[in-house]
Amino acid sequence: MTPNPREAIGRRKTELDTPCLLIDLDRLDENLQKMQGRVKAAGKALRPHAKTHKCSTLAKMQIANGAIGACAAKIAEAEALVAAGISGVLLTGPVAGRPKADRLVALLERAPFLIAVVDDPAGIELLEARLAAAGRRLDVLLDLDVGQHRTGVPPARAAALAETIRACPHLRLRGVQAYAGHLQHIPRYADRKLASREALRQAAAVFRELRERASSCDIFSGSGTGTARIDLAIPELTELQAGSYALMDAEYLAIESADGSEEADYAPALTLLTTVVSGPHGRQVTVDAGLKAIYRDGGKPRVIHPDYRRLQYEWFGDEYGRLVAPDRACLLPAPGTVLELIVSHCDPTVNLFDQFLVTRAERVIDVWPIDLRGRCQ
Amino acid sequence: MTPNPREAIGRRKTELDTPCLLIDLDRLDENLQKMQGRVKAAGKALRPHAKTHKCSTLAKMQIANGAIGACAAKIAEAEALVAAGISGVLLTGPVAGRPKADRLVALLERAPFLIAVVDDPAGIELLEARLAAAGRRLDVLLDLDVGQHRTGVPPARAAALAETIRACPHLRLRGVQAYAGHLQHIPRYADRKLASREALRQAAAVFRELRERASSCDIFSGSGTGTARIDLAIPELTELQAGSYALMDAEYLAIESADGSEEADYAPALTLLTTVVSGPHGRQVTVDAGLKAIYRDGGKPRVIHPDYRRLQYEWFGDEYGRLVAPDRACLLPAPGTVLELIVSHCDPTVNLFDQFLVTRAERVIDVWPIDLRGRCQ
Repeated sequence: MTPNPREAIGRRKTELDTPCLLIDLDRLDENLQKMQGRVKAAGKALRPHAKTHKCSTLAKMQIANGAIGACAAKIAEAEALVAAGISGVLLTGPVAGRPKADRLVALLERAPFLIAVVDDPAGIELLEARLAAAGRRLDVLLDLDVGQHRTGVPPARAAALAETIRACPHLRLRGVQAYAGHLQHIPRYADRKLASREALRQAAAVFRELRERASSCDIFSGSGTGTARIDLAIPELTELQAGSYALMDAEYLAIESADGSEEADYAPALTLLTTVVSGPHGRQVTVDAGLKAIYRDGGKPRVIHPDYRRLQYEWFGDEYGRLVAPDRACLLPAPGTVLELIVSHCDPTVNLFDQFLVTRAERVIDVWPIDLRGRCQ
Repeated sequence: MTPNPREAIGRRKTELDTPCLLIDLDRLDENLQKMQGRVKAAGKALRPHAKTHKCSTLAKMQIANGAIGACAAKIAEAEALVAAGISGVLLTGPVAGRPKADRLVALLERAPFLIAVVDDPAGIELLEARLAAAGRRLDVLLDLDVGQHRTGVPPARAAALAETIRACPHLRLRGVQAYAGHLQHIPRYADRKLASREALRQAAAVFRELRERASSCDIFSGSGTGTARIDLAIPELTELQAGSYALMDAEYLAIESADGSEEADYAPALTLLTTVVSGPHGRQVTVDAGLKAIYRDGGKPRVIHPDYRRLQYEWFGDEYGRLVAPDRACLLPAPGTVLELIVSHCDPTVNLFDQFLVTRAERVIDVWPIDLRGRCQ
């Protein structure tokens, strides 16, 4: 029988079966409070993105800390958040195609205050028709493309799209979304600041215009972990969508923080345990975490063991990684040794697991289901 | 409510919610029969790797076609195969650490004929101690490192390790495993042939020596989809572990096949459906399959729609991809358009989904749970 993950409660980290994902609860608490404190001090709201941690338990903790809800990237994620009793869900990806429109309309039955985004006249027309057929109403944000060219309309086409929305009796325009995903990992803080200010400047102008025309336009949602401190200074922005600050990863730890130091703004609360399964093979050993346990994206995983932190993680197939010694002075761990890694890109890595083992003082104290895992529809 | 995947049965491909994974049943049947026919003609056995498709339903189809069992990379996969009633399971990854040793021993209760691999004296000692404590016996293969330096011992150290195994009353040495994972994707067939022959030559010598010493040494397991036709000519090899031939992917389709043509030996039975969700953004559109729906590894996904096959898939974040037109003559699909892609590397991509939608003649006829999904422990 596959062991029940809750059997891990009470065990020390080094006694755990691997690979598994750990959350250090003290670090997580600290990250949540730090971000919420900054957002509050700036007079803004926080609606953190759940696509990062994919865990309704964690989303509820963010809400308990003062967040006004949670963002979802996909309808399947929104469904799981609603099923867990979370209100204030914002669906940040535009809806296209009949199956998605029908699921969104069906979800309104249990989540009447759900907010969606739109960026296309045909998508709006489809949504309006399905809402009319179901006799429901939906709040929407106009999704603005601020340079990533992924979703959204260019600011110059925003006024026309706003007119299309206003012509739909079952849609209510609540404001704009402008997410500059392409700027979040710019290494130098000064460069990131310049780029984010410029990206959001035009979005702010669109928002001011919409707000003047309708009092229902009171939401300007955007920002991420990389630009959060920068964007808090933008007067028009009303709420932040940042998500990675809660768990962090090697990718975000590698960018310069606001004070210009290499010390990150937030601490790595998420780690992955792996076991050495074979070796030494020359100057390397093989570990049990490969492509299916750490997503190969956004920088390399980092070993955080005091004796072995100079070892370099390298990809080694679906089930394996290798830890390579940079020189002969660097010791190699024996088979059976359990090591802790900071993962590369947290979002897709979390999506590979079914639960977090929550630790405090080196021991597992709880297990949180990653209930949004695999919800890519 | 999240829709039940079985509601898709009877629908046409273009009516499906996306992203989702499809298996074309006719192509799958053809692939399974082709490989089994070749293996049988060579007088060998096939024990296909389930780490590729992670689906016990598919493993049972392979067995119905003549396979002698299934390979598992992790104990969690082996547990799922055994739970599904599959016998003849070979665990291809060496066991390290107490939690894994205990799970392996526990699994023997329901799968007494399970075979494991070993590559390390300390691992063997641990296993022997746990087997003795439980009063169980285990068949093992000696894992040989034939050049990948991932798991296994070099052939020169095989005799000493065989002695270590023979000294353990609860272990029975059944033969060798030699998998040349690093050679499977060598583009030119002639180069691949040369490399695989050389890699398996030394393993064959080790196997002959072991076989002379003990009649229980009757298994020489190895090979993959890239070298299967080459390795069938090696007299000592008794069984193949190939897995990807069943579903195929862009990575395997890109290598030269045995007849020197660019036509692959096996047909792409696995595809992924995605919907255009935004655009056009210049010469590109955005689709709803990103890092969390297609694993970013091993070549780029290919669009197989007749009107849009010249579009290039590019990575565009956790939830999105983009389809880029190489020139102005290439049409862009409108938001809502559903497109079919061949995925890049099948194993980690399959691991992102909970089910396959099985199609025949453009319609869904069945849903198969990916019951080994996420089983990385």
